[in-house]
Amino acid sequence: MKIDGKPYRSIWREPSGEVRIIDQRWLPHELRIVPLATRQDFADAIRDMWVRGAPLIGATAAYGVAVQMAADPSDASLRETWEVLHETRPTAINLKWALDEMTRVLQPLPPEARAEAAYRRAAEICDEDVEINRQIGLHGLEIIREIAKKKGGGRVNVLTHCNAGWPATVDWGTATSPIYHAVEDGIDVHVFVDETRPRNQGAQLTSWELNSHGVSHDLIVDNAGGHMMQHGEVDLVIVGTDRTTARGDVCNKIGTYLKALAAKANGVPFYVALPSPTIDWTVSDGIREIPIEERGGEEVTHVQGRDAGGNIVSVQISPDGTPARNPAFDVTPAELVTGLITERGVCKADAAAMAAMFPDLAKG
Amino acid sequence: MKIDGKPYRSIWREPSGEVRIIDQRWLPHELRIVPLATRQDFADAIRDMWVRGAPLIGATAAYGVAVQMAADPSDASLRETWEVLHETRPTAINLKWALDEMTRVLQPLPPEARAEAAYRRAAEICDEDVEINRQIGLHGLEIIREIAKKKGGGRVNVLTHCNAGWPATVDWGTATSPIYHAVEDGIDVHVFVDETRPRNQGAQLTSWELNSHGVSHDLIVDNAGGHMMQHGEVDLVIVGTDRTTARGDVCNKIGTYLKALAAKANGVPFYVALPSPTIDWTVSDGIREIPIEERGGEEVTHVQGRDAGGNIVSVQISPDGTPARNPAFDVTPAELVTGLITERGVCKADAAAMAAMFPDLAKG
Repeated sequence: MKIDGKPYRSIWREPSGEVRIIDQRWLPHELRIVPLATRQDFADAIRDMWVRGAPLIGATAAYGVAVQMAADPSDASLRETWEVLHETRPTAINLKWALDEMTRVLQPLPPEARAEAAYRRAAEICDEDVEINRQIGLHGLEIIREIAKKKGGGRVNVLTHCNAGWPATVDWGTATSPIYHAVEDGIDVHVFVDETRPRNQGAQLTSWELNSHGVSHDLIVDNAGGHMMQHGEVDLVIVGTDRTTARGDVCNKIGTYLKALAAKANGVPFYVALPSPTIDWTVSDGIREIPIEERGGEEVTHVQGRDAGGNIVSVQISPDGTPARNPAFDVTPAELVTGLITERGVCKADAAAMAAMFPDLAKG
Repeated sequence: MKIDGKPYRSIWREPSGEVRIIDQRWLPHELRIVPLATRQDFADAIRDMWVRGAPLIGATAAYGVAVQMAADPSDASLRETWEVLHETRPTAINLKWALDEMTRVLQPLPPEARAEAAYRRAAEICDEDVEINRQIGLHGLEIIREIAKKKGGGRVNVLTHCNAGWPATVDWGTATSPIYHAVEDGIDVHVFVDETRPRNQGAQLTSWELNSHGVSHDLIVDNAGGHMMQHGEVDLVIVGTDRTTARGDVCNKIGTYLKALAAKANGVPFYVALPSPTIDWTVSDGIREIPIEERGGEEVTHVQGRDAGGNIVSVQISPDGTPARNPAFDVTPAELVTGLITERGVCKADAAAMAAMFPDLAKG
């Protein structure tokens, strides 16, 4: 999407052959674009979260393999690269998938053919992600278009939580893709951005990307959405998901469930945008079966931002030694979900509808 | 309540006659106790929020009148004091009530009798507030005791939002009073403290007072409560209220409504602690009839805390120029409220039950 009028992806190859990323650690305060020149650069970028978001992590790993193949295309180097990059964020599903895929493509080739093939496959992986998100956007656009029509062309207000935007993918984002498509379609869209404590991905990333692309929005605290739905100020909610069960329970950033409850209570449609790989067909009951990561309390007791001197600092908001609990995700049960926006279309959040849309993926 | 083992009120008179308060602007990072020696001191303390919370503002104003009467007990001085203190926070109902009450008592007296009578009435106003909150605590204690009994004496987990604690009153607090009484009663109580963005009253004040008194607690982000209720980690919710309608709709700090929805969805009792003066008998439908204050966006885009150097600073969490919406309160409809804990007892949040408990106050 655009930053100050110029189109960007979150990772790309320059005509010179150099791979570049946006170092997201400095957002929203600084746009730092950095080249990744060695395998070590890629490992650092993934481990230290210069890049984040499942699809982007996979794409970054794929280019990491390519850069290493240009330096040393041997079998040993290929095997070692899988290990080095995999251990950077070992629980990331897309990371393993991308490394396996690169190995599958490159292993049969003679070493001298590997670099070129690796760059080609990495570029394809990026393009495939963009295409999936574009399809999600087109299907979501239909939903927004219907609402705009019902409102006689009036403004459509979308609430979103956390960041399922283009910096989490190669381009378009998932939850944001319908919004960008609606803007391109000339629909008057306004976004309410949940700040998304404790890590403030909404305030730091979603505000930034909407601002950079020129999409109308307001930042709100996580507490505000219920009140706004109660007063008819929200026409629909679109969020992303980290993991969706075979019956449509949605595991997403902590606080998503509260917005789903408010949407249900106020008759506001609640949609979840997801690429099909985030569906976990082996799990059904999300509340009982998905373990929720508890993170350190310092994310709760401290907040990062930019001080008056322009420095990015962390401030403590509670008394010294305050204990904190920090569950990172919650599960929204399927009955609160109006529909799932996937790359194949929109389907109900229930086992039968999901199996019908993904017969090739669903378990018997 | 206690700070490091020593009992405090939020305002008190020293044996020397000096009136002192806790300057709450420095909490939780510093405990600063300051004397208020002149009418101007009192005006500053109320206007600039050294003290806050409706009951405490009223009590502070009453002592402000007393201090001025000691300096100049004339009729002109009394009238002027009403004006000077009233304009500090003109919308605060308790402030006007306290000033009217002091005038009612002092006006008929000869000037030379006013100072002593004023100190006496101010002390009574403080004691009356403490007694109301103590009664709320005793009635709320019964609810907590019942839950403890059902759990076989196990830990009772209470979630609260914002700060309806003792620093908002003279002592005990409203929502916290049942908790303190339960602790004194030997019940194993644990409190989940919503940080309460945007102003973080939970993180700054509720954490501080529970910590200071030695009550077991965890700070959580406002997003976490739904997940915790879903997993049985919360036994009841107790919140305060700024204004309650005659049918029991509850206007309280933004985000309260989301917790009430989650409580209802998960079968968790949701109680509101309130002194009867916060019931507005002229209003019924809180969602339609109560105008909600929208505050400045900077509260959303910035967060105050203590930096690594120990300075209290404000940091910006979103991009420059990010627009924000900031509704300060929301309304929880009566049907989500399990009961109202008042100084006269616990009653259902409906018009008939409330009128039956307060026949002397309810409008025909």
